[in-house]
Amino acid sequence: MSLLKRCAAEFLGTLWLVFGGCGSAVLAAAYTADTAKIGENTTFPLGIGLVGVSLAFGLTVLTMAYAVGGISGGHFNPAVSFGLFAAKRFRGGQNLLAYIVAQVLGGIVGAGVLYLIASGKPGFALTGSNPLATNGFDAHSPGGYGLVACFLAEAFLTFFFLLIILGVTDRRVASGFAPVAIGFALTLIHLISIPVTNTSVNPARSLAPAVFVGGELLAQVWLFWVAPILGAVLAGWVYSSLFEDAHTSDEPERIEEMV
Amino acid sequence: MSLLKRCAAEFLGTLWLVFGGCGSAVLAAAYTADTAKIGENTTFPLGIGLVGVSLAFGLTVLTMAYAVGGISGGHFNPAVSFGLFAAKRFRGGQNLLAYIVAQVLGGIVGAGVLYLIASGKPGFALTGSNPLATNGFDAHSPGGYGLVACFLAEAFLTFFFLLIILGVTDRRVASGFAPVAIGFALTLIHLISIPVTNTSVNPARSLAPAVFVGGELLAQVWLFWVAPILGAVLAGWVYSSLFEDAHTSDEPERIEEMV
Amino acid sequence: MSLLKRCAAEFLGTLWLVFGGCGSAVLAAAYTADTAKIGENTTFPLGIGLVGVSLAFGLTVLTMAYAVGGISGGHFNPAVSFGLFAAKRFRGGQNLLAYIVAQVLGGIVGAGVLYLIASGKPGFALTGSNPLATNGFDAHSPGGYGLVACFLAEAFLTFFFLLIILGVTDRRVASGFAPVAIGFALTLIHLISIPVTNTSVNPARSLAPAVFVGGELLAQVWLFWVAPILGAVLAGWVYSSLFEDAHTSDEPERIEEMV
Amino acid sequence: MSLLKRCAAEFLGTLWLVFGGCGSAVLAAAYTADTAKIGENTTFPLGIGLVGVSLAFGLTVLTMAYAVGGISGGHFNPAVSFGLFAAKRFRGGQNLLAYIVAQVLGGIVGAGVLYLIASGKPGFALTGSNPLATNGFDAHSPGGYGLVACFLAEAFLTFFFLLIILGVTDRRVASGFAPVAIGFALTLIHLISIPVTNTSVNPARSLAPAVFVGGELLAQVWLFWVAPILGAVLAGWVYSSLFEDAHTSDEPERIEEMV
Repeated sequence: MSLLKRCAAEFLGTLWLVFGGCGSAVLAAAYTADTAKIGENTTFPLGIGLVGVSLAFGLTVLTMAYAVGGISGGHFNPAVSFGLFAAKRFRGGQNLLAYIVAQVLGGIVGAGVLYLIASGKPGFALTGSNPLATNGFDAHSPGGYGLVACFLAEAFLTFFFLLIILGVTDRRVASGFAPVAIGFALTLIHLISIPVTNTSVNPARSLAPAVFVGGELLAQVWLFWVAPILGAVLAGWVYSSLFEDAHTSDEPERIEEMV
Repeated sequence: MSLLKRCAAEFLGTLWLVFGGCGSAVLAAAYTADTAKIGENTTFPLGIGLVGVSLAFGLTVLTMAYAVGGISGGHFNPAVSFGLFAAKRFRGGQNLLAYIVAQVLGGIVGAGVLYLIASGKPGFALTGSNPLATNGFDAHSPGGYGLVACFLAEAFLTFFFLLIILGVTDRRVASGFAPVAIGFALTLIHLISIPVTNTSVNPARSLAPAVFVGGELLAQVWLFWVAPILGAVLAGWVYSSLFEDAHTSDEPERIEEMV
Repeated sequence: MSLLKRCAAEFLGTLWLVFGGCGSAVLAAAYTADTAKIGENTTFPLGIGLVGVSLAFGLTVLTMAYAVGGISGGHFNPAVSFGLFAAKRFRGGQNLLAYIVAQVLGGIVGAGVLYLIASGKPGFALTGSNPLATNGFDAHSPGGYGLVACFLAEAFLTFFFLLIILGVTDRRVASGFAPVAIGFALTLIHLISIPVTNTSVNPARSLAPAVFVGGELLAQVWLFWVAPILGAVLAGWVYSSLFEDAHTSDEPERIEEMV
Repeated sequence: MSLLKRCAAEFLGTLWLVFGGCGSAVLAAAYTADTAKIGENTTFPLGIGLVGVSLAFGLTVLTMAYAVGGISGGHFNPAVSFGLFAAKRFRGGQNLLAYIVAQVLGGIVGAGVLYLIASGKPGFALTGSNPLATNGFDAHSPGGYGLVACFLAEAFLTFFFLLIILGVTDRRVASGFAPVAIGFALTLIHLISIPVTNTSVNPARSLAPAVFVGGELLAQVWLFWVAPILGAVLAGWVYSSLFEDAHTSDEPERIEEMV
């Protein structure tokens, strides 16, 4: 596949991740307003809550990794691209840059379509501490967690996210299961940490809604680039030095087949 | 397999999709009335909410795609048949028409059986804005979303639904996982959009309950034929021109093996 | 494997199904009493609700079908044994009888262990309309559904349960996925119908807790033998006459390898 | 792989199990405080509840079993190591000891990182009956269950956990599915028993948070070593004598490939 087609796959995958994950949070998480329309009980908490949002984020990756993972490797996340690069599983330079540009653009389009649909409800506004499902710390942490805890959480969770990705795409593992493991890893990470940072582990996912919200939330995006990429690169080094005897740089032809 | 047997599989699959998906919403979504009977706490929200309904819709497709996907391809949805046709993965003409008739009839029988069972509870009536889990926009959007947002959501979500179906049934992917990816894609789509349109992405699923409800809700069904089929056909064109180098029309024998 | 070992597998599987499924309902469905102990918010509905109970029932089958499905076929349910017999996939006579005895005994032991553990909470009593997660109709339907609706629901849902089992264990399907499809089919069936009959589709699962509860609930068990077995046998006939060209009685060696 | 590398895998896996499972309970289970920040409805129960915590525990094992199961066998649990040893699937002596040390250390580091992050929220304190998601009985059972019921529950659930592990890693089963079955078995076990003991079935998982909490909760940890290991060893004996004709001690080379 040409680099352009692989970037198209990354663009579509990240678009779906941001639209689907953030969309489930914005449109459905705390839905109760009109429950009388669906069920008989108007006070029933029908909304999907944090379990539903966690499931949604994971399933965006599971589904698109099955759909286009064979084309681009199914990163959909600059931290994943950096981590695979650190583990010598993905070429750097122009390749890495092109992937990140495609991921960032895809994320922004996904957040834009979500904004359009969400605006179709009378009274919608970008208010509250995390509008459009933006990430944040301190005053913008959903549960009020401080900068240090948020940085630690993002770096630590991305570290394990990459360990799982590197392990499950290793040669030892029965092929075909990688999207299940990676998608459900993202679900798990959200189950743990939405109250902390609203969960990123993905710089493109953090930047996308912040572009539309601006202000303090855009100013906080730096943490969601630095911490995840730091954790990911560390995981790439740790995994490849600890467990990866078989993978050496003299096997360049496998480098592109991640998922 | 003869076309008749393949249509029987589509009939049964769409019946199960409509009965199971709409049934979970109608019978179990906001269940609290008699919780004293199950647990000690009478105010506990035992009902499955939108997470449970989303899971149910996805699992109807996952289960029947494993059961009869090898027979008919497991479309269970006219938009899927149109999208596969647009991508040159499914024959048009009589085949397409027969599938759609089978899907529509299956959906109507599914909604009919659901209506029978739901009526077995004293006091049941087709009231509220979305009785029998019908789809709708404007006054019949569960969350009050307008026509444009609803149209955009249905077309956009069906576009990605077809991208995922086309990708995961492509030759690159380890066989056997397609029903998991496709079923969970439908779960994800519901996690995002039930508050918007009550989620369709499937013309047969929208028509079936509306036939029993009639009135405004039947009059709104047009959107749930036009938008999903538009999104699906677009996805068929985009996927086949972007990613499908290998699939050419000189391979007719594979055309029927979708799932 | 000898018939005795296969019956041991059926005994253990049905024990786990009844203990795990009914146990999740009895111990965890409406849990709130002591939430102050886990979280800061004493009114938070921590319990697993009907989504959790549905997931639990399905996962009992998924897990034990992977564990001992290769030994006994993983029926864990007299209706499944009858349905497979009707489809000529399972030998009748002594075999069928032995399986059902093992399933019934396993279910009763599972309900007994559950009763023991549940009694370890001060104040536990077999009260309410469905103690120990028994099934029922009319006054013992959790949502107040009448006899006809309950009979129809149980027969119809077991019909589709067997269609799915017969389809996914057919030769067309990639092996290994059957426990996923069958387990999640049971989850789906519970998502739809717990408010109707507390969901059975399994005579052994219905009898087991009723033995300990007695009275009206034991008297209602007949429906949960007749309706599921009727639906299952019908599905066996429909599937084998519609879709099963390849399976003929001259292939006896495959008969025991269901899952 | 050297024993050191296999212990590194066990260390990382158990770290992730304790951090992720207990972390989801501590950080997200009963989250509502600042819901105004995410959705419009300030009283909506957004937290993941016991369904989310159950899913999280299972997914820690599913993900790391795919990632490093091929290296160490993916035990992440002293009871699993003991059970596999009892079934002659894992070498005893130095091997068993090294695995348990690695698991205990991994768990403690996982609980430590969780403590650090949780402390980043102003007002966090180790109060309530089960701080840091510790396990307990009697006064420290979340639902108030007594010692005998708690012991029985832990031994019985670990017995079935090991049956499932031994069955799904047996030669009969299609490879690749073991992490799905084992991870979802742990989810199921949590769906049943969090109100009883806060669910352990894993001595390392119980010890880890108790080390930081101390006092009565540390004093109760003995039950969560004795009961799970007892149940696991029993399962090893039962499974190997009932079902394991093929596995004899003259096949030492397979002993290390569990998952």
